Amino acid sequence: MEKFITVLQDIKTLFNRSLSELSIDCVVFGFHDEQLKVLLLRAKGSDSWMLPGGWILKTEHLEDAAYRILKERTGLGSIFLQQFHTFGANNRYNGREIMARLGLPPEQNFFPERAVSVGYYALVEYSLVEPQTDMMTDECRWWDVNEIPELLFDHNEIASRALKALRKQFDHEALGFNLLPEKFTLVELQRVYETILGLKKGGLDRGNFQKKILGYGFLERLDERKTGGAHKSPYLYRIDPAKYGAYLRENE
Amino acid sequence: MEKFITVLQDIKTLFNRSLSELSIDCVVFGFHDEQLKVLLLRAKGSDSWMLPGGWILKTEHLEDAAYRILKERTGLGSIFLQQFHTFGANNRYNGREIMARLGLPPEQNFFPERAVSVGYYALVEYSLVEPQTDMMTDECRWWDVNEIPELLFDHNEIASRALKALRKQFDHEALGFNLLPEKFTLVELQRVYETILGLKKGGLDRGNFQKKILGYGFLERLDERKTGGAHKSPYLYRIDPAKYGAYLRENE
Repeated sequence: MEKFITVLQDIKTLFNRSLSELSIDCVVFGFHDEQLKVLLLRAKGSDSWMLPGGWILKTEHLEDAAYRILKERTGLGSIFLQQFHTFGANNRYNGREIMARLGLPPEQNFFPERAVSVGYYALVEYSLVEPQTDMMTDECRWWDVNEIPELLFDHNEIASRALKALRKQFDHEALGFNLLPEKFTLVELQRVYETILGLKKGGLDRGNFQKKILGYGFLERLDERKTGGAHKSPYLYRIDPAKYGAYLRENE
Repeated sequence: MEKFITVLQDIKTLFNRSLSELSIDCVVFGFHDEQLKVLLLRAKGSDSWMLPGGWILKTEHLEDAAYRILKERTGLGSIFLQQFHTFGANNRYNGREIMARLGLPPEQNFFPERAVSVGYYALVEYSLVEPQTDMMTDECRWWDVNEIPELLFDHNEIASRALKALRKQFDHEALGFNLLPEKFTLVELQRVYETILGLKKGGLDRGNFQKKILGYGFLERLDERKTGGAHKSPYLYRIDPAKYGAYLRENE
């Protein structure tokens, strides 16, 4: 309980330093071994799950706030965050409700009356990162995107909109290469796309997929084949960094 | 001067009713006759141009605020607004600077110290709308997107990012059809795309363009040709509404 009171006092102090009506929520997707997951936090002493989020400071650039908050809440740094939507339903957050949920008198509410939240998402290879809890959470772990539990506030909507944005961007901006080793086969690449897009194995037509991917113009076929599989050895490919850079600039 | 003081008092009252750190800016693009323009306001008694924008009220849904503000500042209603980015550089807006610009003592600043702004854009056929000034502006008119003057705050950045978002969405989501009469030729459609994408006549390859457009699967070729041109009469096309609806739902 003493710890709890300290936390509350920290929150009060935070609101004096923050743009009190504006928060940030981060949707971190983790890809590994043909699975797509999302990082969720369980609030201290409760069964309630939520996205990692926090309040923007008065003097802070919005982007800086996003990186700081993600780092503070999950321990994750050096991850590219992409802003995707701002959530502003007038009933999405209510300070008095939160007081009541914490067992505190709503009339003494020190949380904002309402808040608008800017959503950011990220995509990481989740075997490469180690999320950590902060003092406001008991647990911080990956959930399969198809098994997200009921979340606090409008966080289910935020997560689902982030997934849509990720899939759209992924499809248009050829992001799949970040999730593979330096040399890969076109079938491996196809599986990455199918996983992110929520399709089963073979859900994308192989011929069309390869035509599209090679049409980007930055894949280089190596004089090398992948060996060890059951079938005939497929060619390995890699990205031509200069051509990929040019492609990204053109499609920014 | 009396009018000016009334306006200031109105602004003070507004801040008591608003989420004082959060504003909305609207970038309205107007398409007509192979030209793409953007709607700008000239602030009362000044030479400074800006985007139509305003403050979100405490009890107001973010989307409702966007429509209300656009209506109040330009007279335009019934236009689909699309949120595209939230701008939060910590130096993008400064209440004291605005006081100084208005010839008022900065230490009596009643504007927010800083503000984060949510950007919305719209695309209209500009011969169909009639923008009007409000009491804070002297002029409200269309500017060619290639001749946008220096704007207040970070509004040049907001406008240029909106244009990028419009072009991206236009290209991916087949929006060109909204800007044509019911029956049109593929060449007319190509000119709409070229104009929005900032390309000169013939900037898109005709064969590739027609392949892409027909590939969407919702265009229907009529047994009817456009007559009156100098060359051989091209076929007219129209949209199959059911197929177009299915396409939009799939690509939402």
